[in-house]
Amino acid sequence: MRFERRDIISIKDFTRNEIDYILQTSEAIEPLEKSGSDMLHGKMLATLFFEPSTRTRLSFEAAMHRLGGTAIGFAGPEGASVKKGENLADTVRVVENYADTLILRHPLEGAARLAAEFAQIPVINAGSGAEEHPTQALLDLYTILKEKGQIDGLNIALTGDLRYGRTVHSLAYALSLYDVRLHLISPELLRMRREVLDTIRKEIKVTEGTDVSKVLPEIDVLYMTRIQKERFADMAEYAKVKGAYRIDHDMLAGVKDALVIMHPLPRIDEIASDIDTTPHARYFQQVRNGIIVRMALLALILGAAE
Amino acid sequence: MRFERRDIISIKDFTRNEIDYILQTSEAIEPLEKSGSDMLHGKMLATLFFEPSTRTRLSFEAAMHRLGGTAIGFAGPEGASVKKGENLADTVRVVENYADTLILRHPLEGAARLAAEFAQIPVINAGSGAEEHPTQALLDLYTILKEKGQIDGLNIALTGDLRYGRTVHSLAYALSLYDVRLHLISPELLRMRREVLDTIRKEIKVTEGTDVSKVLPEIDVLYMTRIQKERFADMAEYAKVKGAYRIDHDMLAGVKDALVIMHPLPRIDEIASDIDTTPHARYFQQVRNGIIVRMALLALILGAAE
Amino acid sequence: MRFERRDIISIKDFTRNEIDYILQTSEAIEPLEKSGSDMLHGKMLATLFFEPSTRTRLSFEAAMHRLGGTAIGFAGPEGASVKKGENLADTVRVVENYADTLILRHPLEGAARLAAEFAQIPVINAGSGAEEHPTQALLDLYTILKEKGQIDGLNIALTGDLRYGRTVHSLAYALSLYDVRLHLISPELLRMRREVLDTIRKEIKVTEGTDVSKVLPEIDVLYMTRIQKERFADMAEYAKVKGAYRIDHDMLAGVKDALVIMHPLPRIDEIASDIDTTPHARYFQQVRNGIIVRMALLALILGAAE
Repeated sequence: MRFERRDIISIKDFTRNEIDYILQTSEAIEPLEKSGSDMLHGKMLATLFFEPSTRTRLSFEAAMHRLGGTAIGFAGPEGASVKKGENLADTVRVVENYADTLILRHPLEGAARLAAEFAQIPVINAGSGAEEHPTQALLDLYTILKEKGQIDGLNIALTGDLRYGRTVHSLAYALSLYDVRLHLISPELLRMRREVLDTIRKEIKVTEGTDVSKVLPEIDVLYMTRIQKERFADMAEYAKVKGAYRIDHDMLAGVKDALVIMHPLPRIDEIASDIDTTPHARYFQQVRNGIIVRMALLALILGAAE
Repeated sequence: MRFERRDIISIKDFTRNEIDYILQTSEAIEPLEKSGSDMLHGKMLATLFFEPSTRTRLSFEAAMHRLGGTAIGFAGPEGASVKKGENLADTVRVVENYADTLILRHPLEGAARLAAEFAQIPVINAGSGAEEHPTQALLDLYTILKEKGQIDGLNIALTGDLRYGRTVHSLAYALSLYDVRLHLISPELLRMRREVLDTIRKEIKVTEGTDVSKVLPEIDVLYMTRIQKERFADMAEYAKVKGAYRIDHDMLAGVKDALVIMHPLPRIDEIASDIDTTPHARYFQQVRNGIIVRMALLALILGAAE
Repeated sequence: MRFERRDIISIKDFTRNEIDYILQTSEAIEPLEKSGSDMLHGKMLATLFFEPSTRTRLSFEAAMHRLGGTAIGFAGPEGASVKKGENLADTVRVVENYADTLILRHPLEGAARLAAEFAQIPVINAGSGAEEHPTQALLDLYTILKEKGQIDGLNIALTGDLRYGRTVHSLAYALSLYDVRLHLISPELLRMRREVLDTIRKEIKVTEGTDVSKVLPEIDVLYMTRIQKERFADMAEYAKVKGAYRIDHDMLAGVKDALVIMHPLPRIDEIASDIDTTPHARYFQQVRNGIIVRMALLALILGAAE
């Protein structure tokens, strides 16, 4: 399978075989996360972060450094100023001269696809609009695989803001390639987008609900997300909803012993801190897996692994 | 010729022989842009960017990385906060302890010269005030040389804002060392500064004008620059001028086949996108040449090339 | 003596033996500051700067690069945005996955200690609240040692803002482990904090005063600090105080030939520039020593030196 020079824009661009291949490459590369490597010595990535995402940026930079490569780029307020007056196509055609791959974060949907069309070097979408965040989906899959041994056959709940959270969109598409049962638990206002739902329903069994406690006893993986206050016009509605999509230690009575709780982070208070020390908590493990999966992706698209 | 430990402050500090030498070194180092090198392994540059210039900063950092060196520094909003309360001489005497060369961008004219006086390590001016941007001039010369085979004998137009654009000041000085004919095309309000004009007229034939279409058929190189709205008190005047200093595909009827169109970027809409795909467009090539010339400069002043 | 995996949070966590050991390691590592080394090749530090401190950040990054390691992180305005909504414990548990050591700067006292409790990798306090700045104290000690041959037996004045300056708190604690005589010279409003004074008085002879000129003839080291306008409600009071804690060339008549003048920088105008060229001025030497001491600390805690 050839990934060299390939763009990573949407999880929908990948077949199950390709995703499995990325996950296998991640397993193979995992020991290098500790030992380090010079596999990408002389290679450089450029981060173009038009909106802030310190965690994702650092994860890509760390992955590159662990493989012996280097990183340049801009982020946050500086990214905002770059945007002024110059169109994205020009920025991409400038910055691609500086590096071997571009890592793009942008507030607009479609930005990563546009960048990939103009760039002659591979582009990785590190989040664009509310649409997609493919590397997050891949690290989520890798975490499930590592924790459960396999993805097929699992009973998985996605919980919280399923409308605006780009993470859950990419993850839902990815999971629909596997033989899983999916529960989508959210407030009415924040239900999974219609286009995602229509697509994944063709592939797997999906139920929707508003009460997480109803599915808790039967699920293998609970994927929590943050509900942002800004989504609500009515603060009373927000207050009500917020409490209902929070999980704490008491709610874990009756769950499966091997229940895995995940979260893309940052969390506000969706997961009480008394869960952090339980064996269910895997959200910090996800962070570490993020580096490993990004090491694999960088090695693949830059031609150092195959 | 010795460049080790030399400051790069103004293009006026260099003789034609020295500039030719830098351009030759750039040609020699160009293959390393792709292959990479450890020529500057263990060397470090520090970027002191007191005003934002993401492209220039990334170009220097990429050049350093391609030669195996590393980069630290500050930029943008952080640069602004450094400025508070501490004078530039102190900042320079602090940061020079951290690195092997300083790359300075500053809103005030004369800042780079002052920094070089205080620093014991070489300083490169990455743009100071509206005055000078010597590495841009060098990469422009390198682009002309690569595209045309030689600089002598060419017919070159500089167009747009010739009053406030630091790029065109440095470039005009540099071109005056060669046997070229120079056309300066700008609105009345944005004519080339008197001191630049007086200096270059002693060396080469210079004409001034306001209509780019008049010189288009005879020129070999068209160097476009951006006209900034902020320069105009009268918006009606701006609107008129703006349209007159914009070039599109239709205007290229009758130009020389080998006409080269350049721009320091970012552009707003001075060059229509329908020109990007013509063989005349060389502005993204300039970006790549920028890395190569900066690799050569870093190698020279840090004693790795001679 | 084992420093591997040890946190550097407060100077109070170290015995005199341990501090002497760090200073000896600094002397041993000093030649590598010029020659470079690959001692920490493959190691990575992460800077978490929740408030700006460009100089300290660059010093740590430069130290890491000089030993062949790499650096990632956030700072300044981006740091401020990271803080929003996520607690420090979570940020630490995320970022520790990216690197081998965390360098933390935070506006709140106690933040570095908290970070160290949550992190499984060593944490270095790069300044937290008005409390402590241990690596600055170590570089100050190293400067005194290098300039004077030994610390014991010296007569040292700390001058300026002794109340809010974290640098002088850490330094006072550190000096109290040596056989020195300490003069604390400050405005009434900015006297040394009671808890520091009580602690160090148990160990060494300390005098307090408001007039630096009275101690100038007898001291070996004059440590100046900045008095910040923001500390004063009454601007007339500030104006009076400010002038009294400023030193210039004329005041040096009658001081010891070998008087060493130090300052943590940035200075505003506490030290007149006519002192910069005297042999007393050592504040830029402190900057260079800062890299050396931080190289030693990084090598120690990452297990590359012992």
